[in-house]
Amino acid sequence: MRTNSGPAEDLFIELDREAGVPLHRQIGASIRASIRAGRLRTGASLPPTRTLATGLGVSRGVVVEAYQQLVAEGYLASRSGGYTQVAASIPPAATAGSAPPTPARSAGFTVDFGYGRTDVSQFPRSTWLRSVRTVLTTTPNDRFAYLDGRGVPELHEALCDYLNRVRGTSAVPGNVVICNGFGQGISLLIQVLVQRGARRIALEDPSSDDDARVLAGAAGLDVVGIPVGPGGVQVDALQRADADAVVLTPSHQWPTGGVLSASARAEVIGWAQRRGAIVIEDDYDAEYRYDRSPVGAMQGLAPDHVVYCGTASKTLAPGLRLGWMVLPPHLVTDVAAAKVLADRGSPVIDQLTFADFLARGEFDRHLRRMRPVYRRRRDALLDALRTHLPELEPAGIAAGQHVVAWLPPDLDEAEVVTAAARHGLGIHGVGPYRIAGSGPGGLIFGYAILGESAIAEGVALLATAIREVRGA
Amino acid sequence: MRTNSGPAEDLFIELDREAGVPLHRQIGASIRASIRAGRLRTGASLPPTRTLATGLGVSRGVVVEAYQQLVAEGYLASRSGGYTQVAASIPPAATAGSAPPTPARSAGFTVDFGYGRTDVSQFPRSTWLRSVRTVLTTTPNDRFAYLDGRGVPELHEALCDYLNRVRGTSAVPGNVVICNGFGQGISLLIQVLVQRGARRIALEDPSSDDDARVLAGAAGLDVVGIPVGPGGVQVDALQRADADAVVLTPSHQWPTGGVLSASARAEVIGWAQRRGAIVIEDDYDAEYRYDRSPVGAMQGLAPDHVVYCGTASKTLAPGLRLGWMVLPPHLVTDVAAAKVLADRGSPVIDQLTFADFLARGEFDRHLRRMRPVYRRRRDALLDALRTHLPELEPAGIAAGQHVVAWLPPDLDEAEVVTAAARHGLGIHGVGPYRIAGSGPGGLIFGYAILGESAIAEGVALLATAIREVRGA
Repeated sequence: MRTNSGPAEDLFIELDREAGVPLHRQIGASIRASIRAGRLRTGASLPPTRTLATGLGVSRGVVVEAYQQLVAEGYLASRSGGYTQVAASIPPAATAGSAPPTPARSAGFTVDFGYGRTDVSQFPRSTWLRSVRTVLTTTPNDRFAYLDGRGVPELHEALCDYLNRVRGTSAVPGNVVICNGFGQGISLLIQVLVQRGARRIALEDPSSDDDARVLAGAAGLDVVGIPVGPGGVQVDALQRADADAVVLTPSHQWPTGGVLSASARAEVIGWAQRRGAIVIEDDYDAEYRYDRSPVGAMQGLAPDHVVYCGTASKTLAPGLRLGWMVLPPHLVTDVAAAKVLADRGSPVIDQLTFADFLARGEFDRHLRRMRPVYRRRRDALLDALRTHLPELEPAGIAAGQHVVAWLPPDLDEAEVVTAAARHGLGIHGVGPYRIAGSGPGGLIFGYAILGESAIAEGVALLATAIREVRGA
Repeated sequence: MRTNSGPAEDLFIELDREAGVPLHRQIGASIRASIRAGRLRTGASLPPTRTLATGLGVSRGVVVEAYQQLVAEGYLASRSGGYTQVAASIPPAATAGSAPPTPARSAGFTVDFGYGRTDVSQFPRSTWLRSVRTVLTTTPNDRFAYLDGRGVPELHEALCDYLNRVRGTSAVPGNVVICNGFGQGISLLIQVLVQRGARRIALEDPSSDDDARVLAGAAGLDVVGIPVGPGGVQVDALQRADADAVVLTPSHQWPTGGVLSASARAEVIGWAQRRGAIVIEDDYDAEYRYDRSPVGAMQGLAPDHVVYCGTASKTLAPGLRLGWMVLPPHLVTDVAAAKVLADRGSPVIDQLTFADFLARGEFDRHLRRMRPVYRRRRDALLDALRTHLPELEPAGIAAGQHVVAWLPPDLDEAEVVTAAARHGLGIHGVGPYRIAGSGPGGLIFGYAILGESAIAEGVALLATAIREVRGA
């Protein structure tokens, strides 16, 4: 056992080479515990990776990986000059009495493929700060007063420029309403649809259970699931569903990853036009596309019948709570009024900052920087699946921040998920996201916040779990 | 008529000395129109005040007043070196299809005593920016991910320190939920109360009609008005009301300005304890107190029965959309869950920035700086009323950002409001804010964003209008 002879030169860490726990995890856990207990205080410098590696008798890469993980978690901060120190404020332990924030679990698993997380360690802090500075320096005073429910005009304009250019929408500033993410957007839409007499809403089956389904049920709407195939939602089933609105993820169906075909899009729009129904297009991860041609937004085909919903949660950070809707003109006033009643409009500094960020081209630059990062993680996932679990069938791999892999018929999805958890692997099955339909078992791999070695480790754990299920 | 010989030396402005409109208003209107029409473009320099005054044959003070007003409105910006230029982005004309943001009207009146506005030209931009910089430099990454519905722990702690010190609350961080202003807070509370079986909510009569009344009605609650006297709400009427909750403004009743007495507070709390009812304390303008002793929050007397609601809208800027609730422990989980369902939590950068701003003492400094500003405006209002309208009876003058003045019995409130509007004066009567009760006529003077000369001008306009009503 070694003792601590000075923070910048050495660090007391006990390694157990027989424990079966990777050394970088042991190092990370030890430093994390020291920070939590106050033994390592804010601003304290850590030893250089080479020094610590030599002291512990491990390779430098092991220490680098441990430090990187702690930087990603916010415990450590990399400073210029190449040294690492304890961050100014550390992440708290889980708080009591809190509601579950998102399906993404974290604590307790060695590797967690929980979906719906974006890599917030990549949030472009310095360029965002530059835009905040511009806003606080140049914005006229009246922008800080009460505004109407639609949001600030600067952001309406910047979003239309961006969406029309990149997503092929047909958006005009007067039809945009800013909201606090997709969850609030769908809540406002459902309120307005109910006020206008809507009685039934159609959702993709399977689909996310955390927004539309809960809110529609609470608002008294019938919810009907429309089965999803490899080409997205099955339009004939939608046409039989007697629904007043449908929520779709046409660019990358969640969770199955399918793309709604051009002919299916046309049929859905024809349905909406004949019925006077509304298509709610959740374009949740369209910005991350790796090896396929861009698929334009449905809104561009029928701006009078499609509500386009986007969010910065998957591209910048969920904590911004920034979302937007491009609405058919006849819905703008009612949705804006619902927004006023909900919270009197979204905070203006964030809106103005995002408008400046978009107008400067920083959003494009950020996405260009992030695409190869996520693509490498996706490739690591597909490589590991090919190597360890070739009988799983990945789908929807061309875009987004998650992959579904279908299980062979002999494997029970719930059994695999349970066995994986026993082995320290967090992963969701597709089954819980089905509304009425049944279908093959599948697993949802969220890979956006995992390093490539963690992804490989996670798939190896899954392979062990599946061997166990098969052996049982 | 003079012509424009260069923007930094001269400016084309036509003055009509016979119009009966003050010269500084004519100058302001002319420059505003030029900017709106694009004749004066962003960044264009204006002539020095002395130069323009000489050119127009007016005193320099007249031009200074015109420029100051346009800076306050955001059309112009003062630059270092003492020159003035057209601001980088100008306030838009009213947008189509927008819901009314607030009862505060503005356009069309010479002077507008609309209430509910705070002087956003005083928003502390540079100290706020410093806090944003600190946040973006030091905050751990995981703060930018999805959070629980309560908000960031840093702000819970900073608010408890502040509220317990300044407002006499008994708040602990675990019982705080951050929301987007009072409107959203009351919306979440009403949802939770209805879920728990509440059927009737009591509101002060008169009271604000824009949040609690609309939301409670929409949620299916019976709304019952409790008459308000000079000492605040009448507790015996509350005790007969069979209500499950009551919304109070005990520190400065809106709009009548009364303070709920210590004995009435104790009776209300006793009522809540016996019935298991909830007191919702809207502490909307407690920070502005001019010549009376502080009145502590009711929440400090009974933290298990009182929900304390505060907001930055009246102290910093409505555009921040920052509010907070200190909840009885048994409501925290449900209110946080309602917040998650509404919008998955408030934006984090604003929360963290306000936490830093509070912790640095900047909020205290800002309030200390603003109190004499508002006090001078209130004094100007009271002086002008004494001079021009001694028969009106001002009430609730010791605190806040508005004053009510009761009308003598021979004057009809609605007639006075209508006549005032004909004379270019915007003012609200008390009558529209009554729920069931009747009572004396009164006028609500919001003075927070008006300069002292505008206040005097407004009261003079009102005196003219009242003479007209009496003469009719």
